[in-house]
Amino acid sequence: MTDLPPPSQALRRCIARLGLTETTAINWAVLEQALIHSSVSPIHNNEFLEFLGDSVLRLAAAEFLRERYPDATVGELSALRSHLVSDRTLTALADHLGLEPFLQIAPSAAGDLAARDSRLADVVEAILAALYLSRGNLSLVRPWLDPHLDRLAEQLRQDPARQNYKAALQELTQAHCKALPDYRTTEVNPVHGDARRFQAEVWFQERCWGKGQGRSIKLAQQQAAQVAYQAMQNAFNPDPGNDAKTP
Amino acid sequence: MTDLPPPSQALRRCIARLGLTETTAINWAVLEQALIHSSVSPIHNNEFLEFLGDSVLRLAAAEFLRERYPDATVGELSALRSHLVSDRTLTALADHLGLEPFLQIAPSAAGDLAARDSRLADVVEAILAALYLSRGNLSLVRPWLDPHLDRLAEQLRQDPARQNYKAALQELTQAHCKALPDYRTTEVNPVHGDARRFQAEVWFQERCWGKGQGRSIKLAQQQAAQVAYQAMQNAFNPDPGNDAKTP
Repeated sequence: MTDLPPPSQALRRCIARLGLTETTAINWAVLEQALIHSSVSPIHNNEFLEFLGDSVLRLAAAEFLRERYPDATVGELSALRSHLVSDRTLTALADHLGLEPFLQIAPSAAGDLAARDSRLADVVEAILAALYLSRGNLSLVRPWLDPHLDRLAEQLRQDPARQNYKAALQELTQAHCKALPDYRTTEVNPVHGDARRFQAEVWFQERCWGKGQGRSIKLAQQQAAQVAYQAMQNAFNPDPGNDAKTP
Repeated sequence: MTDLPPPSQALRRCIARLGLTETTAINWAVLEQALIHSSVSPIHNNEFLEFLGDSVLRLAAAEFLRERYPDATVGELSALRSHLVSDRTLTALADHLGLEPFLQIAPSAAGDLAARDSRLADVVEAILAALYLSRGNLSLVRPWLDPHLDRLAEQLRQDPARQNYKAALQELTQAHCKALPDYRTTEVNPVHGDARRFQAEVWFQERCWGKGQGRSIKLAQQQAAQVAYQAMQNAFNPDPGNDAKTP
């Protein structure tokens, strides 16, 4: 691998951010291509890498989950994997790593805030493809990805709502009161892509249990549902310690 | 790999059917597990291999398609891949290879003919996982799989209906007459899983253009649509040679 060109100055900062080292045998040219949005070049961009990286991620996640949870059923592994490979999880990972400043993107495309989450998820998949292609196997991917998958999978397993608070809240209110919560959503700032464009409230039994904001109705309602879910769990189970003592 | 146990007598016939040789360094125990349906053992079966093999297949197909069609867009590759990894394609591959007699399955489960296609598709995915796990990369998968992908991808590219004749027929009638065909479907033999259970006819402009049969309404209609599609193409373009000469 010594005949590969060294990383550029710009790429070095990204490499450090990813937690990789410059002495690792990585095809730096491919890694650099993983950071190029299609608005910069119609040919030399990360589209194919994202396409390939999607399956690299699914394969690595399948291997990881089997090793990490050897007693789980395939159904459980499959449910966990579908969360781990979702755009939502990948965008959160890109934000966790602070990848956004390293994406080469045309200003016009960067202004499309509604597409931000999806293009950051694509960058993570493209980086995984670059790591895979550097070796032709998962020997670079797994050591880099596993700690992130471990953290994310544990969050999912400890979170009964599995990041879908609207569904979880619905289950909760139906189980306790056989009724559904009511969402009241308004557009407060009609700017496409604005993170505070929509505001949602969750009402149940004549009380507002949570409020949320988001660039879409769905995001605002999910945020409101998360607040309401936690508030309602506390209301239904005020002291779980006492429950444990009940015979 | 010489410390791995040799293949059993039963597995040898399957190996020959797959076009592999006994001198290839394959983990035969894992390949044998790929042929065990969950009805035979709740633990030692092919469920996890199928789960892993799904992503092995997607990865191998992405690599193959990029090499085979270097000028295609990622959108085109993505559309081709979604057909190649579909249950329909995998079942056809399992039938092409004659894998069904090698599946170890409980008689009660084997009687569920409606699930036949899906479990044969699962076997192909599980075999791909076994080949992948034997080496930890695609070096056994690609040489075995590529000729099949090549044949299947070429079939898809030469087939304008891309195996979905209902959609293709709808496009054809709308383009020529701005109207939709009518499907008349009846259950002729109410036996679950019977290949002639449903009969479908495609009617358009007071004429029946095609008939089909199948174990589901969908399959019967697809078969009828395929017949109708070919008949209608001939009717709309009776002699393509003449069209070519038109300036």
